Amino acid sequence: MENIEDGNMDTEKAREVIVEFIREKVHEANAEGVVLGISGGIDSALAAYLAAEALGKDKVLGIHLPELNFTPAEDVLDATEVAHRLGIEFSAIGISDMLTAYLENIPEGDKATTHAKGNLKARIRMSVLYYHANMLNRIVIGTGNKTELLLGYFTKYGDGGADMLPLGDLYKTDVWELAALMGVPESIINKAPSAGLWSGQTDEKELGITYKEVDRFLSLLLEGTATEVVRNTVGITGEQADSVMRRIKMNAHKLRTPPIADLEHLR
Amino acid sequence: MENIEDGNMDTEKAREVIVEFIREKVHEANAEGVVLGISGGIDSALAAYLAAEALGKDKVLGIHLPELNFTPAEDVLDATEVAHRLGIEFSAIGISDMLTAYLENIPEGDKATTHAKGNLKARIRMSVLYYHANMLNRIVIGTGNKTELLLGYFTKYGDGGADMLPLGDLYKTDVWELAALMGVPESIINKAPSAGLWSGQTDEKELGITYKEVDRFLSLLLEGTATEVVRNTVGITGEQADSVMRRIKMNAHKLRTPPIADLEHLR
Repeated sequence: MENIEDGNMDTEKAREVIVEFIREKVHEANAEGVVLGISGGIDSALAAYLAAEALGKDKVLGIHLPELNFTPAEDVLDATEVAHRLGIEFSAIGISDMLTAYLENIPEGDKATTHAKGNLKARIRMSVLYYHANMLNRIVIGTGNKTELLLGYFTKYGDGGADMLPLGDLYKTDVWELAALMGVPESIINKAPSAGLWSGQTDEKELGITYKEVDRFLSLLLEGTATEVVRNTVGITGEQADSVMRRIKMNAHKLRTPPIADLEHLR
Repeated sequence: MENIEDGNMDTEKAREVIVEFIREKVHEANAEGVVLGISGGIDSALAAYLAAEALGKDKVLGIHLPELNFTPAEDVLDATEVAHRLGIEFSAIGISDMLTAYLENIPEGDKATTHAKGNLKARIRMSVLYYHANMLNRIVIGTGNKTELLLGYFTKYGDGGADMLPLGDLYKTDVWELAALMGVPESIINKAPSAGLWSGQTDEKELGITYKEVDRFLSLLLEGTATEVVRNTVGITGEQADSVMRRIKMNAHKLRTPPIADLEHLR
């Protein structure tokens, strides 16, 4: 685990493993290829690069799903640039009409909280991606990374809803490194990470901790180091550590299939 | 497992276990109650009865999500009747505008297959339920039963998307029995089961086998009986058995969290 700190994970090897993984999953599913959302952020850009390398550009459909008057213009440009560089099929589909249709039909939908609206957007995006997967006999690539998965920093059945997670064992700091190695555009690598669910949101502001800190924290925790020791090693406050621990605990349900009432003993 | 055949599962005991399970899950989640879709079919009716018994009527919100000119009028009436008898909060929200918004914004959305449209509807319903769960600090009850889960007879991240599955260990034949015991309206119990995703659909027609047969088939299979023996015992054709086995295999991915490319050995 020391590698996390040193930034010495064998990134080239990780690239090979992930590329092979994507090929295998598509093969196992008897699918014609993959569909993925390309937001303009680094995770989906990296996932697109890996998918194109694994399957060839003709088997990757990237879809940008902006919200009018909300999604920053640079995200649209960056998403388009990724698709253009890779030569993959690309489509941009606005989600504003869908969002409006929900909020107009749901009683008091005009009173939607930022939180409820943010999750709804993520679920609309998932639904559009699966629609294309259904029509094309493809499967959906999710772009969640290890940091997001451990923190539960994603929408259940929204961006968390996918058929495979090629980046699921890469910390965010690994994502940056592999993205640089693969030639993801600088403008994307240097952008402040944001889930883009509300205006002005950045992940690090919302989490109250930098990715570098939280990745180090999580990797030490997974090694079995005591929370207090981890906190001191990483050099974060007790409040920050508590907040991370709270997220892990509160969101663990997002990583599991729904629990079932067990009746085996009654048969 | 013999009980399945005899219809002798201790249904009264199952009711107690499920009621306790629902209470526990709501408590664990620190939630104010539950939200569930009430379709007019037997599974969601039974789930509503169990939830009301577990939590009291004030903590259960039932939402009927019909599609205009498509959902049969008797389903609307039956769903309303369930809510009325239980005294739970109830709302009917049409999904046609949402569906139209998707199909008008997706390129060539007018060419949607029945299959893609069916799955999209299930995902719209999930999104509306979670919207309410977010707004009310509640969790979502899924209404899938054991037969559906084993066959993968549900939409991934659609009706399969929920926070708990109280009926998940009840075969469809058990659902009928428990529903009768709890006083679910006769009109619902006697209705031919249908996922309602396309017109004229009934589950047994689509599956090509009756629920009685498939439940017996699945329960023997789970006991470890060889497929050939099971087929003869239940008295179905080789084609029917193959079709069931194919569903189980093809849909196993729906019951798992998305696979992750494992990089542990590189750290």
